[in-house]
Formats: sequence, C-alpha cells, structure tokens
Amino acid sequence: MLPSALPGFRDFYPAECAERSHIFEAWREVARRFAFIEYDGPPLEPLDLYTKKSGDEIVGQLYTFEDRGGRHVALRPEMTPTLARMVAARANALRKPVRWFSIPQLFRYERQQRGRLREHFQLNLDILGEADVTADAELLAAALGIMSELGLTKDDVRARISDRRLLNGLLKLAGVSNEQLPLVYAVVDKLDREPREVLEQKLGAAGCSDLVVARIFEVLKHTDLDMLRSEFHGVAELRDDFSRLARYFEMLEALGVREWVVFDLSIVRGLAYYTGIVFELFDARGEFRAIAGGGRYDNLLAQLGGNEMPALGFGMGDVVLGELLRARNLMPPRAEALDYWVAGADGASETIVIRVATALRRRKLRVEYPLRAQKLPKQIKAAATAGAAKVLIIHDDRTATVRRLADGHEESVSLPDLLEASDDSPRDPWVFAVAR
Amino acid sequence: MLPSALPGFRDFYPAECAERSHIFEAWREVARRFAFIEYDGPPLEPLDLYTKKSGDEIVGQLYTFEDRGGRHVALRPEMTPTLARMVAARANALRKPVRWFSIPQLFRYERQQRGRLREHFQLNLDILGEADVTADAELLAAALGIMSELGLTKDDVRARISDRRLLNGLLKLAGVSNEQLPLVYAVVDKLDREPREVLEQKLGAAGCSDLVVARIFEVLKHTDLDMLRSEFHGVAELRDDFSRLARYFEMLEALGVREWVVFDLSIVRGLAYYTGIVFELFDARGEFRAIAGGGRYDNLLAQLGGNEMPALGFGMGDVVLGELLRARNLMPPRAEALDYWVAGADGASETIVIRVATALRRRKLRVEYPLRAQKLPKQIKAAATAGAAKVLIIHDDRTATVRRLADGHEESVSLPDLLEASDDSPRDPWVFAVAR
Repeated sequence: MLPSALPGFRDFYPAECAERSHIFEAWREVARRFAFIEYDGPPLEPLDLYTKKSGDEIVGQLYTFEDRGGRHVALRPEMTPTLARMVAARANALRKPVRWFSIPQLFRYERQQRGRLREHFQLNLDILGEADVTADAELLAAALGIMSELGLTKDDVRARISDRRLLNGLLKLAGVSNEQLPLVYAVVDKLDREPREVLEQKLGAAGCSDLVVARIFEVLKHTDLDMLRSEFHGVAELRDDFSRLARYFEMLEALGVREWVVFDLSIVRGLAYYTGIVFELFDARGEFRAIAGGGRYDNLLAQLGGNEMPALGFGMGDVVLGELLRARNLMPPRAEALDYWVAGADGASETIVIRVATALRRRKLRVEYPLRAQKLPKQIKAAATAGAAKVLIIHDDRTATVRRLADGHEESVSLPDLLEASDDSPRDPWVFAVAR
Repeated sequence: MLPSALPGFRDFYPAECAERSHIFEAWREVARRFAFIEYDGPPLEPLDLYTKKSGDEIVGQLYTFEDRGGRHVALRPEMTPTLARMVAARANALRKPVRWFSIPQLFRYERQQRGRLREHFQLNLDILGEADVTADAELLAAALGIMSELGLTKDDVRARISDRRLLNGLLKLAGVSNEQLPLVYAVVDKLDREPREVLEQKLGAAGCSDLVVARIFEVLKHTDLDMLRSEFHGVAELRDDFSRLARYFEMLEALGVREWVVFDLSIVRGLAYYTGIVFELFDARGEFRAIAGGGRYDNLLAQLGGNEMPALGFGMGDVVLGELLRARNLMPPRAEALDYWVAGADGASETIVIRVATALRRRKLRVEYPLRAQKLPKQIKAAATAGAAKVLIIHDDRTATVRRLADGHEESVSLPDLLEASDDSPRDPWVFAVAR
C-alpha cells in the first residue's frame, strides 16, 4: 500500500540505526581525539559547485534538478566542494592548519547493481594549510585510529600508501613523457582488474616503447621503499621524494601505526585530484572494497575556485566498514536498551509506578513502565523483551523488589528515600554486586 | 568565485555545528531515558509517499523532481509517512507500543522570508499502538524533559494543551454541526492572528447563528479545566472526555511536569491530523514561534496507507529551540576543545613530540601538536587559540612541564612512564588540583 524506499536508499530500523551510531560514534571520538572539529553543509547545493571541477566523472551520476525558483541544484555527491566554499568564505579568520571533519550523507545515481547504494554516509576528515609531510602522517594515523577504536587490528586492515610525486619522477625516469602521464595513471589504476597484455597494448597505443612499458611494470612492482631507494640511490631528481617518504614513515612509527602500512606504488586514486602521498585502507583478506581512501590534494581547492592552499584528507564510508565489522563479529551485540523496567504488582497504583519511573529518569537512567494495566508476569516478560537490565517490582507506595534479569538476583528496597531525594545526580540507587 | 549555499540552507561552521550537536545530544539523551529508540529513513522518498495524504497543504512546497530512472521523488518534508511505511512493513514483528525517535533533516520550499529556512532538523518522537492517555502524558513529559535537560525551566517554557475530542463535544453542544466543524477549527486556528469581527463574519458565513458564534467564543476562552468541568457537570456526552483529561493531568503530576502545563482549548494544530490531546511548547514570554507541537493522531497511519493503530507524537525543530537557548544564555560557552597541546622546546625532537601526543591519545585524550617546527611562544599561543586546557612542554626525551593555561600553574613531569605504559584506559596522567 505504502511505497517502499527508493532503490539504493536505506530504511534504518533500530537495529541498523544502532550499528550506524556505533560507527558514527567511533568516527567522532577519534576525530576529536586527533583535534579535528566538526562542520557540516547543506545536502542540496547549487549544481555549479560540482560542475566547476573539470574532468569529473561524477557529473553524469548526480541527482540534479531545477528547484521552484529556477535554480539548478544537486544532492551533494561529495563534500570537498562544500568544504572549499566554506573555507574560502572565511579563510582569513580560520586558525591554520584547519583540521575539520564532517559526516555527510552523499548521493550518487549509480547504475543499479546488487548491493550498490545510491546514498551513503562518509566521514570526511581534512587538514588545510599545511604542506609538511607531518600532516600526511597525522591524517593516516587518524584513519587507522578509527580502525583500532572499532576493534580492528593490523591483522584485519592494511593501509596501502603511494606517492604521486615519487611515482611521477620514476615514470619520467622510465621514459614516460608529461603528455603520456595521465594515460599511464589510468592504466596503473586498472592494474588489478585487467590482464597485463591489455594494459601493455594501451601503453603502446599511447606511444610508449616496449622498453618503456617494461620499465613501467618494473617500477610498479615495488613494495619495499628501502630497496627502491637503494636502487635509485644517487638520482638527484628523486632525492627529495625519498627523504620526504622516509620522514613520513618515521612519523608513522612515532604515531604507532607503522605496522599497518604497506608501500605500494600502484595505488593511484582520483587522477585529477591528488598531488602527493595517497593511501587506501582495505581489509587484509581482500574480501571487500576499499574502506577508506585519501591523500594530498594541494591544487584542488584553487581548482574548485577556492583558496590556493595545501590540503589533504580522506573519505571513509559507512557501508564497507559496516560489512567488515559484521564479518569480523565487531558489531556490538545489542546493548541493554533500558536500565529499569518499573512494574506494578496488584497493590501498586498507576501513579506510584510513574512517580518512581520519573525519579529514576531524573538520575539519567533509561526507564520504561507499562502504559496500561497488565498482570505482573506479562510486565516482566515485556521488560525482558525490551532488554531491561533490572525490573523494579512495586508492591505499594513504600516497598518494592529489584530483580536483575540476567541472573534473577533480587533485593527488597524502600521507595520513600528515592521519591523524596532532591539529588538528581546520575546514579543508580540499587547497584548490587555483579554475580559472575 | 565559489557559489554560496542555496537561499534557506545553512553552512554549519564549527561554532554552529557545536550548537547543533548540543541540541542533538539533549534530544538523544532524553529520548533514550524515556525508553525511545532511534530509527532513520531516506531523505529522498517516492513522491507518492507524501501525496497520499489528501488535503495536505505541503505538497505545493515540496522539493520534487524526476530522477534519472523516471521516478517522481521528493526531499522529505516530514517524517511521519516514512515512519508509517517502516512500521507497516514490520508491524507484526515490532514490540508494542512502538517507542521510536528520529532526527531527520526536513525540506520545504517556503516562500522566501527573512530568517525562514528551507531545511531544518526536527526531532520526531512517537508512540504507536497505545490508545490510553498514559501515553499522551508520557509523550509530553519527554518533550518537557528535553527542555529541562537544556537548562530551560517552567518560567521559560509552557506547554499549552487541548483535546480535540472535548472541543468537538463542546462545539456540538454550542450548536455547531458536523459539517461546520472543519471551518470552525480553521477559525479557531486563527484566533490570535485575526480580529474577532473577521472571525465572527466567517462563522456567520458558514451558517452559525449569532448565538452559536457567541457560544463558540465562550467555549474557547476556557483555560481552567476544573471550572469548565463544573460548568458542564452532568452533561453525559462529555463525561468520558473530562475523566480522560483529569487522568491526564494526574499523570502529568506524577511525571513531575504538571506545573509547566496550561489548559487552552484554542490550540488546534493540523486540521486533518489530530484526534485527541494536542499540545504546543512555546516560550513563556511569547517571543518566538512554537518550540514543538504534537498530539494524538489515531487515524493517520491508516489514512497514509499504513496500519490501523492508535498513535501519537511530536516534532521539535532545531531552529526556534536554538534561538531560545541563545536568548536565554543557555548555549554552552565554547567547551575546551583540547585536553593537551604538546609543544616541543628547542631540545625536543619532532619524534618525541609525536610519541607523547600518541600516548596521550591512547588514553582517549584530545591532543594536538604543531605540524611544523615553531618557536615555543608561538606554540603556546596556538595552544591557547585552539582552546587547549593544558600545554605539555617537552624539553627532551625524558622531561617535560605541564602548564594549565587557565591559571598558568606548572608542574615538572617525567615522560618515560607515560611512553612505556601498556595501559590505554582513559585517564589523564597529569591531573592536578583545580585552583579556584
């Protein structure tokens, strides 16, 4: 009778909403621990905000329309243009570096595929105004801090990192011209997905000789920075890139995340976007799509029409992360939703039940009571279904029994103290030793 | 250069985002204390979901368009249709009463007026499946609980309540026919906004005699339930309505919120919507628009195409509430954003600064450090600007000074313990007595 949600859009029932909250809370907690502060922008923006960036493949996937005032508008497919706008509008007043995060819901009209959504939530965490590689290390440490916070370890998740500047230098040394670079990157990006022969053909068609093609594949094989460095020892053009990367890894060591990180030159990410170190988080078993991705995009803000400002950031969606947490049994079991269920025995008036529930809520406890008269066994069953930790069974205006549902432990308690207390500080009046 | 946000849409810079979080946290905290659980739905829905409800004035204000798949879609202007859909899809599996809340962002293309927004966030809190008036009292207590949680008192906020069933009965007694009722409600709804003569004319045009018109205004004057009850003592048709309301007020007393509530028969709210007790929260000085509004809507879910199910709920937006909190100085001052700023004196290496920052973050503290080499005074200034509670000045690999910025209190501390501790439990290693 009622229309379902649109394809690719999710209804969040309480169980799914609790999982989403679990992820959002970890995002917020770690972002704040790393001294990032939250901002947000509108989910509907002028279409112009997204079409400015030339070469963007997402424009064809936008939810876009004309509003009642004749404005061309779009549901936001990404957060960076909004960030660029907001920072540009107050660039002088903002403390640098800007360390901001946001949890926007983003929208793309993707071709319908099984499990592909048209909306998702994505943590966006960015540092603006700092060119030093310390910022790159700080950014990756924050992303990995979230993994730890959610219970994932370096055995579950890896960060693959690369450096666009070093790769540029290596490819030039291999004989790739500036004009060929974009095409070579496009090929690198498909390294895992297409057979080598197809990629070799594409490189050949772009004018790379067989020797150059062979060297390109040689370069991309590297996953050991130290070996690569000694191989290119003495190449002056690469010296700065190697020292920067060495410092980056030192910082990652000091940040306690070095062991999560693997060096992999074949990581490209967003062709038109990134200018320096880039990274991807993925599950170590390789079962899921990337968990997060990001890097340095020093030219992008200016390209978008914002400030000339070094910048870096990452996006981490809620969907793949949720799948991974569920697969690793790290979605928390349903928490006890209630501290108390207040039940009335036959001798208890409706009013005393409500007064006691109210006194407990004043102490910031989560409390439910039956909204209509019910027999006691039915109330206790309802308490269990609701996930209450304890039931308070009220006998009359003065006496009650507290029963802990986990083990049936019971104690008699007196009500007048609770009802007359003026103290509203958060505390459970009837905490008893936990029997294990 | 970059397009601004659309008219009526807000950019939330960190200061505004913190205010929004303050409101959201109070909403969530109190909703959970009252045993409500969170759900959410898509911000984009099939247009059908909103056009089903006949007589709805909002359809002309929808953000609506055709998506790339030819579907007619709309940005959600309200949450109830989504709620009706979600509950209908799982009606049998859900524990009754359903006590759910959500904090959707809602969208309406309103005629452009100063300060009128086209999006806002709105707490929606609903109880489905309970016809008893205890549910009505519980709902209002939750709304008022939020006011208390935010620091507002009964001197700041009042709840005006009315009862559509009692008002129906009184208007019939006054001589209003069933056919005239909708028009009379429309007039009642404008009681504060149009002169009495205009309203009298409208009632006359609807066929109400002068006597009936006079009686209508007589009825609407009542703000004392007991007086009203004794006036109509013995009228059998009203007996149930009066006892229900009396019980409602008893419950409100037990819930500790009776003193916030005034009885006011002239509250109408949503003509096609409500069937029982309705309420509005408004600021006691009458400076702002309504803070919240809601009531019982027993027929609505079925009208929408959902279940035949008694239901009640309220909506509370973030905009008026935010204005009121700011006007009453109840928006919290900017919290200390950071626990520690870790600064390096001349003898400290970059690495030791990062290692110490990392050790503090492992204890769940909020920590920033400079991402590039800076002189100490500049670092301490940056710490103050960032709102850090303390600066940890690192002298070398072993020694440091903690300085509390509020009063300049300093202590020398040793670093090796912190760096070697395997204990990651949340705790500040250098808490000193607060000097007041």
